[in-house]
Amino acid sequence: MYELLKKDGAAKRGRLKTVHGVIETPVFMNVGTAAAIKGAVAATDLKEIGTQVELSNTYHLHVRPGDKVVKKLGGLQKFMAWDRPILTDSGGFQVFSLAGLRKIKEEGVYFHSHIDGRKIFMGPEESMQIQSNLASTIAMAFDECPPSVADRDYIERSVDRTTRWLVRCKAEMERLNHLPDTLNPRQLLFGINQGGVYGDIRIRHAREIASLDLDGYAVGGLAVGESHEEMYRVLEAVVPRLPENKPAYLMGVGTPENILEAVDRGIDFFDCVYPSRNGRHGHVYTNRGKLNLFNAKYELDMRPIEEGCRCPACRSYSRAYIRHLLKAKEMLGMRLCVLHNLYFYNTMMAEIRKAIEEGGYKEYKTEKIAGMRQGNGAEL
Amino acid sequence: MYELLKKDGAAKRGRLKTVHGVIETPVFMNVGTAAAIKGAVAATDLKEIGTQVELSNTYHLHVRPGDKVVKKLGGLQKFMAWDRPILTDSGGFQVFSLAGLRKIKEEGVYFHSHIDGRKIFMGPEESMQIQSNLASTIAMAFDECPPSVADRDYIERSVDRTTRWLVRCKAEMERLNHLPDTLNPRQLLFGINQGGVYGDIRIRHAREIASLDLDGYAVGGLAVGESHEEMYRVLEAVVPRLPENKPAYLMGVGTPENILEAVDRGIDFFDCVYPSRNGRHGHVYTNRGKLNLFNAKYELDMRPIEEGCRCPACRSYSRAYIRHLLKAKEMLGMRLCVLHNLYFYNTMMAEIRKAIEEGGYKEYKTEKIAGMRQGNGAEL
Repeated sequence: MYELLKKDGAAKRGRLKTVHGVIETPVFMNVGTAAAIKGAVAATDLKEIGTQVELSNTYHLHVRPGDKVVKKLGGLQKFMAWDRPILTDSGGFQVFSLAGLRKIKEEGVYFHSHIDGRKIFMGPEESMQIQSNLASTIAMAFDECPPSVADRDYIERSVDRTTRWLVRCKAEMERLNHLPDTLNPRQLLFGINQGGVYGDIRIRHAREIASLDLDGYAVGGLAVGESHEEMYRVLEAVVPRLPENKPAYLMGVGTPENILEAVDRGIDFFDCVYPSRNGRHGHVYTNRGKLNLFNAKYELDMRPIEEGCRCPACRSYSRAYIRHLLKAKEMLGMRLCVLHNLYFYNTMMAEIRKAIEEGGYKEYKTEKIAGMRQGNGAEL
Repeated sequence: MYELLKKDGAAKRGRLKTVHGVIETPVFMNVGTAAAIKGAVAATDLKEIGTQVELSNTYHLHVRPGDKVVKKLGGLQKFMAWDRPILTDSGGFQVFSLAGLRKIKEEGVYFHSHIDGRKIFMGPEESMQIQSNLASTIAMAFDECPPSVADRDYIERSVDRTTRWLVRCKAEMERLNHLPDTLNPRQLLFGINQGGVYGDIRIRHAREIASLDLDGYAVGGLAVGESHEEMYRVLEAVVPRLPENKPAYLMGVGTPENILEAVDRGIDFFDCVYPSRNGRHGHVYTNRGKLNLFNAKYELDMRPIEEGCRCPACRSYSRAYIRHLLKAKEMLGMRLCVLHNLYFYNTMMAEIRKAIEEGGYKEYKTEKIAGMRQGNGAEL
């Protein structure tokens, strides 16, 4: 299903064919936690800003509206009126970060809903069942996300459990895909590499999960406090140990610069809340660094966020207008900034794909990063 | 500029030609208080939902971003990227309802900004100057909006002052329209009829202002607590005394039924926050009454808000999805409901125009009201 079209150094230009359409990689998935991109962005907007894959959160949808409700409504694609690929996470990360009081056992995790405090159990089988009900294109394996401060011993035991859970995920997904009433009988499953910042544990774990022949492989547990250099070091250790003929996904990353560096280390898939979260706070990306549109200097600035940008915000609206909307707490201000930021990320990914195709990725990356750094701190 | 195309009973089908384009009446103006329709609706969305005229609030724009800022940015149309007609109110209503501690004098009103408490003075000349800076298509006269509980003596004195203020508004608007640096040298001015629920005062005032030969006439100070029947009674007394060859505007009204009844009494222009405010609370209009999308009965309802509706919400999304968004506090839920409601109002106005053209307005009105009443209380 995954075709490696071209390599330029370690950078991969790939294509993943799914039952819901083709994904050209490297790709940035646009995060729609509760089946909607925050900032009043609808599925119908996503096509206009170049989104290929929408990412929804299993934990959030399990507690509201409930994955069984989504299944009755025909699955996530039909529910949110998005007919292209969707990736769902496993729920694990949210269980470990959002949910109340939790207990980790071999069978899975007991925790309390952050909505109503209700006691919930989620293990590998439950995560697969929920994701099968949601009928996403790509399901993620249920893993433990240990705190980044955890010691080596804990990480080793945790990674072993994550491997055992992955075996159970794979078996359960195969079973679910063969049930007569499944909404997506060709749901894909990506495994997740863990191991904190310990290169040797990461490498051992990468080898173990690679042998399971999954549809793709993610690197998890990064971008949680370690330095960017540590993150790049982990990628350099791990990605070469993952099957090259499968897509590689760096979870929850990151800044445009992080993405450019990670592509250069062989990553295909990305997701991050930065563009939408920053947009809601009036922070917008340009090729000359980020702007804070709350800044008084934009009061009379009739230019679009970025000259030449073809996003729905820049095509019609000025910095001055968007600044006014943000200050007046008009939702429209947030919407326009989020649309711009997602367009910026999606467009950068298209540039990345082109640069790899043309064999000029290193030069592209160097120039792009230099341009963005140039503006930071000394805003336009 | 106003052409009365057809009458059907007292109902008027008219056309107002303005420097910013033609307005077909009866028309419902879509309220964008601070140069944006609340609910993340952009000017670019308005064309899709059939908006003819956008209405912005002079008081809000005067305090933020400031009308001088808007003028420097080329006026309200350019600021908010809306190239069709805009009506601005006078600021009077907000000064009397929103602003802190105020003092009414013959020269105008002293009050405090609701944003930063700053002391502001606004009289007829200031209101015209601000609206001239905003460069709206239609400016409204600065009037006093006395509390609906005010006694007869106060209303009489207030109405006399409103007439004196109107004379000053007209003179100032003429002066401003002739200034070399004005953004809209053909800005129109509508006068406002007041008089509370006192039919004789209303009629006397209507005659006085009619003699001033303004571009249009509004009926103000209604929909502030009096019964619908009282409002219709006032319209029946006042509208026949206003020039038939000028547009008549009923300010701040109202429900679909109010609009249908007021059209039947000769009103051309309407504005109201109901469709956007109700939309933000998940209350949506249909031809069979209003629905509250928070209601649990819509959890699995895959139908659009209204079958056959061509609005951006109904074309793609189900009641179940929108209900989920509202419950998850996703802004997108509000946006979709507001888009639907404005489309509902704008579409009803198109139906009204057609019914008058065809000479079947009474039948249309009766059927439309009966249909909407049918659903109320017993939701679909």
